[in-house]
Amino acid sequence: MDSDSFIPDIVVGRLPLYLRTLQRMKQEGQCITSSHELGEKLGISPAQIRKDLSLFGEFGKQGTGYQIDYLVEKLRQILHVDKIWDMVVVGAGDVGHALSRYQGFSDRGFQVVMVFDNDPNKVGLEIGPFQIQSTDLMSQVIREKNIQVALLAVPADQAQEAANRLIEAGIKAILNYAPITLTVPKYVYVQNTDPVTHLQRMSYYLNF
Amino acid sequence: MDSDSFIPDIVVGRLPLYLRTLQRMKQEGQCITSSHELGEKLGISPAQIRKDLSLFGEFGKQGTGYQIDYLVEKLRQILHVDKIWDMVVVGAGDVGHALSRYQGFSDRGFQVVMVFDNDPNKVGLEIGPFQIQSTDLMSQVIREKNIQVALLAVPADQAQEAANRLIEAGIKAILNYAPITLTVPKYVYVQNTDPVTHLQRMSYYLNF
Repeated sequence: MDSDSFIPDIVVGRLPLYLRTLQRMKQEGQCITSSHELGEKLGISPAQIRKDLSLFGEFGKQGTGYQIDYLVEKLRQILHVDKIWDMVVVGAGDVGHALSRYQGFSDRGFQVVMVFDNDPNKVGLEIGPFQIQSTDLMSQVIREKNIQVALLAVPADQAQEAANRLIEAGIKAILNYAPITLTVPKYVYVQNTDPVTHLQRMSYYLNF
Repeated sequence: MDSDSFIPDIVVGRLPLYLRTLQRMKQEGQCITSSHELGEKLGISPAQIRKDLSLFGEFGKQGTGYQIDYLVEKLRQILHVDKIWDMVVVGAGDVGHALSRYQGFSDRGFQVVMVFDNDPNKVGLEIGPFQIQSTDLMSQVIREKNIQVALLAVPADQAQEAANRLIEAGIKAILNYAPITLTVPKYVYVQNTDPVTHLQRMSYYLNF
């Protein structure tokens, strides 16, 4: 198993779904599952699941299924979430507020450590368990703490500039909540989460 | 142009990104663009963009580019966002709060019309411009107003049951913020937005 070997990004994108489902099974006390059961829960074919997982090694045998505990541990290693990644939140509006209080990060490999905003009226206020920091301090903090992951929750017209500053300070992965497509260097990873693009992908199929 | 003809879902998924980028260009006063410019902004090849758009008709000519206004209107029609879809928010926690106040829906084809929660202590409180309603009323409201779209922002262990009730009442499209995979009938569309699956897709590529 070598995560440097080439794995298609579309496969990488399915691994967090496998992990999430397996962790939920584990929480519910289940010990063994099958590609069939996983496939039913995820709407992905069992053959696809077996093929995806086989890219990383031998995780189960025909007829005996997968040991959930073992597969969870392996997927956590593969996705590099067997440790906790520190994250900064940029933008202390409604989305930033929800992110700073979100309970679901830490047991899945991430934690917010600071929240920044460029509005002097917000700096110093509390947001969830954090005190809002000025973006003037942002680059320095990211460098000093060697933070690589940022949650970008600023208005669309400020997002590119904020992303530029984050990247210059050392951020390598941005989860972008602003409804624009960011332009970033090749070595920076961006995932976008815009509720409207999700909704429009569904409204295409709906009739008034 | 006939949205009943078969278009691959992966193409449908790119159309909202084209629309978003074109609308932004329009806002900035731009009138004409090219598949090359769109491709640069989106990180999608110009050939792919031309191929995607050609599935829906003739939108531009080699050498003259796309009329942004015209293409925006056509994409809005194709994605059925040339009207406004009413939506319900289920769950009045932090995410529900952010959704109920989100400013970016209405000019892109959607609006929140009601917010529901099953906590009697929350019912009647204000959330953004809404008063939180009891989920006891949810099915009736959805039926009466013929609402087809729901934003599901309840805890993971309540999400499947809430989805079942929504679907029974007539909801056809669910944007699911709960970190579980919902099981739904084939005629219901679900899109998932879980920050951690996005983050894990990036942490795969990062080194500690």
